[in-house]
Amino acid sequence: MKPSIPSGTRDFSSSDMLKRNYIFNTIKRNFELFGYAPIETPAMEKITTLTGKYGNEGDQLIFKILNSRIHESKKKDELTKEFELSLHQSRNTHVLTEKALRYDLTVPFARYVVMNQHQLTFPFKRYQIQPVWRADKPQRGRYREFFQCDADVIGSNSLVNELDLISLVDICFFELNLPVKLKFNNRKILTALAQVINAPDKIIEITVAIDKLDKIGKDGVNKELLENGLNESAIATLQPIIEFSGNNQEKVNVLNQIVGQNETGKKGIEEINYLLNNLKALSINHIEIELDITLARGLTYYTGTIFEAKANAGDFTPSILGGGRYDDLTGIFGLKNMSGVGISFGIDRIFDVMNELNLYPESVNKGTTTKVLLTHFGEAEQHHCLQLAQSLRVNGINCEVYAEISKIKKQFEYADKKQISFVIIVGSNEMQSKKYSLKNLGSGEQVELDLNEIIDKLK
Amino acid sequence: MKPSIPSGTRDFSSSDMLKRNYIFNTIKRNFELFGYAPIETPAMEKITTLTGKYGNEGDQLIFKILNSRIHESKKKDELTKEFELSLHQSRNTHVLTEKALRYDLTVPFARYVVMNQHQLTFPFKRYQIQPVWRADKPQRGRYREFFQCDADVIGSNSLVNELDLISLVDICFFELNLPVKLKFNNRKILTALAQVINAPDKIIEITVAIDKLDKIGKDGVNKELLENGLNESAIATLQPIIEFSGNNQEKVNVLNQIVGQNETGKKGIEEINYLLNNLKALSINHIEIELDITLARGLTYYTGTIFEAKANAGDFTPSILGGGRYDDLTGIFGLKNMSGVGISFGIDRIFDVMNELNLYPESVNKGTTTKVLLTHFGEAEQHHCLQLAQSLRVNGINCEVYAEISKIKKQFEYADKKQISFVIIVGSNEMQSKKYSLKNLGSGEQVELDLNEIIDKLK
Repeated sequence: MKPSIPSGTRDFSSSDMLKRNYIFNTIKRNFELFGYAPIETPAMEKITTLTGKYGNEGDQLIFKILNSRIHESKKKDELTKEFELSLHQSRNTHVLTEKALRYDLTVPFARYVVMNQHQLTFPFKRYQIQPVWRADKPQRGRYREFFQCDADVIGSNSLVNELDLISLVDICFFELNLPVKLKFNNRKILTALAQVINAPDKIIEITVAIDKLDKIGKDGVNKELLENGLNESAIATLQPIIEFSGNNQEKVNVLNQIVGQNETGKKGIEEINYLLNNLKALSINHIEIELDITLARGLTYYTGTIFEAKANAGDFTPSILGGGRYDDLTGIFGLKNMSGVGISFGIDRIFDVMNELNLYPESVNKGTTTKVLLTHFGEAEQHHCLQLAQSLRVNGINCEVYAEISKIKKQFEYADKKQISFVIIVGSNEMQSKKYSLKNLGSGEQVELDLNEIIDKLK
Repeated sequence: MKPSIPSGTRDFSSSDMLKRNYIFNTIKRNFELFGYAPIETPAMEKITTLTGKYGNEGDQLIFKILNSRIHESKKKDELTKEFELSLHQSRNTHVLTEKALRYDLTVPFARYVVMNQHQLTFPFKRYQIQPVWRADKPQRGRYREFFQCDADVIGSNSLVNELDLISLVDICFFELNLPVKLKFNNRKILTALAQVINAPDKIIEITVAIDKLDKIGKDGVNKELLENGLNESAIATLQPIIEFSGNNQEKVNVLNQIVGQNETGKKGIEEINYLLNNLKALSINHIEIELDITLARGLTYYTGTIFEAKANAGDFTPSILGGGRYDDLTGIFGLKNMSGVGISFGIDRIFDVMNELNLYPESVNKGTTTKVLLTHFGEAEQHHCLQLAQSLRVNGINCEVYAEISKIKKQFEYADKKQISFVIIVGSNEMQSKKYSLKNLGSGEQVELDLNEIIDKLK
């Protein structure tokens, strides 16, 4: 039988892994540069920890783990009856399953903070890079196992945190050489907009309609707003927002006219101004940063700033980062009044886009970590290679001695296929003279050097 | 409800993670130094890939994942009937579950090699560091989720690979500063021993009995051998082995007397001699390396060299590494005649031992990655700190600006609790003079420096 893997999951080859590690390491280094420290939580959580946190649809997508030794715990009849019952009610009961695979890193993080609240120093800044699992229908770019890569700070209201996160995003994508547009918004502006037009329950409809401007035009947007139950006067008030354009400061001026007198709106504008002024003063400008009033993700939990970044690569513009401020993340586990803000890098999407655009440095594209292969004409020469390898490794040079006694041609083929950059050739003359041929397989250049010269060249 | 995590699983705090990353990174760097490249496989494998590979007991410990949307796939009656049936036979059928969490990294590796045999370059050298899951009864030092950390080479018979692996183990534990004894044996010697005494099916009983020498003495061992069905003449032949002592070379001499005329024994001795001679010639001697004829792990699959390392720390000597050569790893998936050899670091045990002995360098013990906290006397000063932080980060110095406007005492307390080494203090005088107080919180030393001097000092 031909082996295979479950649909929606992936193996990562060495060549993939070198690319993924390059992305992970770039982001990790910057997380630490900004004072975020790593934590990890288990792949399995209790089902009671996860259910009810992701809405009905989310709950359906949680992978549940079958209890081990279900035989022993109950009598057969009893078990069958409970199983039958479970089919009537929700999908599973605790007889069958009590544990599940984590669905994201946010709920486990909230659970961790609540469990460890007396040991942690607040504001608590953590990053976490681990896989999550969702029983989604697999399709291009959507996997059942994928990594999340989150940084959050909890226990601080200060906008310095938002500023830090934008700066962090800026430097990460700059270093990855990935063109990105970071959009941001503020939940308070959306709340205020809905208040000033007396339609506090219509936030989503308003943002969805306005977001269609490019596609359906101004008249189309207005028609949709009308269909969604907004009256003429409300729609008239929204006109400057629908025609929203210009740079970030010009947009703020428009907002000021419409929601500047509303208390929540005023607060939202203050927050946006704080960020814009500081971004300018601190020259945080590697990536494009745009205020977008139609950005309305996570409205059920975000309470202040909302972030989303898209790759800015021609027609291909997948969402690769999201985040925002929440005022009550840990409330679900009984710890109230902890405001926080966080971002989540969509690492698997970033990997896909970077592959598509081939944005990796040459060293990463090589597909191998081995710098040099030591080749030889026989057993004595191989033994000599082992001694040379020992010295190269002490000097931090990644190398392999070709393990078999084979024709030199076969040894070169191995180096070629693995895209190893250099080979050292050891024959009996080389053993005596202690001068070795070092060949660059890329350029074809070949030089005679002693061990120290080789070390200097490859280091 | 107080949240908790499933028994046998763990959260890792930032302080834990810094220690774990130190161990992981040390091993990773050396894997790559020896030409091993990373791969990753999914957490979930098809159940058909895993079952039948770990023996009956192992199969019982595999965590199975409940199929999602089992409702829709079958009618209720049908499902209940199959469930009832499944309770009679094995624990679960494919109605309930088709996927399971990986139990180790070896079977997924074999599956990967077979699936990708036409793309891979052989000998194929890979490392893999990922969690595995086992439904074992949790106890001290035994977890239901733990990491494996494996390096294997497949498609090569050469003993150069064994030598490389020993050298790799030697340098890893030397760098981790962990005292270790690496025991090795050769399956061929065990086979030969059983042959020369005409008891080919008694290998395990013989090694178990001899291994008890320290506890039950020579007479005890002989008594046990007799009870296990060995005759007087066989026991007499084994006497030099039971009294096995001296250095590795002296032990080889004894082996030579007993199994040197047996064909398999002769081959085994040759292999041991190759390793001992080269270990000496290459000065691989940071850790203690001992030939131990009672080492008999993995007898169902190892065919040549067998490894095991134990921490050598007084009374506390847990097994922290295992490995060996196998001639038919990929045969289970239909790819025959691929000989390989590998080792597996018991990372969670190593973590436990290193904690017990407190073997981490000071920088790792700190529990934070933040080097300096920027503190301030008000909003203007905080803004100034943001600019300083920008410059520090450009120079690779991990730092945080205290996010709230608070009393300086509170800011210092935050630095203290997080064990941040340095604080910079910015008041209005400092903003004007551009000379800042840099305080070392460990020594209490405080100096006035400008930004460039601070960068030089902290870099």
